[in-house]
Amino acid sequence: MTEEVKLFGTWASIFSRRIEVALKLKGVQFEYIEENLSNKSPALLKYNPVHKKIPVLVHNGKPVAESLVILEYIDETWKHNPILPTDPYEKAMARFWAKYIDDKLWPAVTKVLVSKGEEQKGVIEEIQEQLKTLESELKEKKFFGGESLGFVDIAANIIVFLLVAQEALGMEILTEEKFPVLHGWYQRLVDDAVFKECMPPREQHLSSVKVWFGSSTPSK
Amino acid sequence: MTEEVKLFGTWASIFSRRIEVALKLKGVQFEYIEENLSNKSPALLKYNPVHKKIPVLVHNGKPVAESLVILEYIDETWKHNPILPTDPYEKAMARFWAKYIDDKLWPAVTKVLVSKGEEQKGVIEEIQEQLKTLESELKEKKFFGGESLGFVDIAANIIVFLLVAQEALGMEILTEEKFPVLHGWYQRLVDDAVFKECMPPREQHLSSVKVWFGSSTPSK
Repeated sequence: MTEEVKLFGTWASIFSRRIEVALKLKGVQFEYIEENLSNKSPALLKYNPVHKKIPVLVHNGKPVAESLVILEYIDETWKHNPILPTDPYEKAMARFWAKYIDDKLWPAVTKVLVSKGEEQKGVIEEIQEQLKTLESELKEKKFFGGESLGFVDIAANIIVFLLVAQEALGMEILTEEKFPVLHGWYQRLVDDAVFKECMPPREQHLSSVKVWFGSSTPSK
Repeated sequence: MTEEVKLFGTWASIFSRRIEVALKLKGVQFEYIEENLSNKSPALLKYNPVHKKIPVLVHNGKPVAESLVILEYIDETWKHNPILPTDPYEKAMARFWAKYIDDKLWPAVTKVLVSKGEEQKGVIEEIQEQLKTLESELKEKKFFGGESLGFVDIAANIIVFLLVAQEALGMEILTEEKFPVLHGWYQRLVDDAVFKECMPPREQHLSSVKVWFGSSTPSK
């Protein structure tokens, strides 16, 4: 059976990039459709009428939305090169940490980019506590997923975005001195051939963050 | 092997009630530990150091937190009487709707209880749109899960709380005239022996909502 796999995304979105990484780790051929979020396509609105957001994976005409839901769908549909553990307890832990990253870290990261002064300092402290929590979880492991990158590592691409954002805006949040464990993890992540292939062009990414959030006051 | 299953919860929490319902649907014996949220036990803080919240399921000494994560863990650990579909696409849809209920409906429901006047009217409209979306998903089905109650029905116990809250506070949000489909679903849900057994005592529940949120202005 010929499979039709389409991904609706945007190049700068960490959420659609998660799906690209997972599909490439699985070796699944797919058509990537770049969406213009200021003028969403009728196809996107048809496939995700509830949230009207990317990413959307369309598999043989059937749409799935929400990046973590899509990742689980991919892992259950194409079972080789698993990204989630098979043990129910380990799987629950992976889901717990991915949810933590989306529910706690992501709102704080988006907030730090639009806040200023004292408020921004408070958010930076909040992020740094969250990053310490993630370092405690990672500890001596190569990846959150163990020996190879998995579900939580893919979800933790928010940290990669944070590193780009702090460089673009001259912030010091996730420094190598304060977070050696996460920096080591980041290096292994971007050394991974699949992950590297899915990174957006560096200069273009830095510029876009400057354009979007450049009015924030740098907090060092 | 003798299994040890403990649930840390509080009687009025819809989130710990989700876990009670799932364990009872599976026929899993468990010890229920009522937490006092204004004076959390050392055990709860040990088992959920990240969020310090109920519910926590402790299975043979290993803790799992976050209600939807726990529900998936229960379904994968005790496989009889499944609460999630086995088909990957159907499973993705169940996860999508449960996430919608937690990410969209729950924040709006908690907001409506603490807002007043014009702001409250706006939130009521928002909730009603979300409920219409859920009615479109439910349509002619007996339960979100199909013929028997499943993952989304358990997550949708937020709607049961909303019905209690609107009665306690004299609000009109989810009326039978406006939402006949959801009212039909609610009736089937509370007619289910397991679900009914997990409902908190009605008068106690109504009183507690009045105590917590009684200062909100009723919006009819």
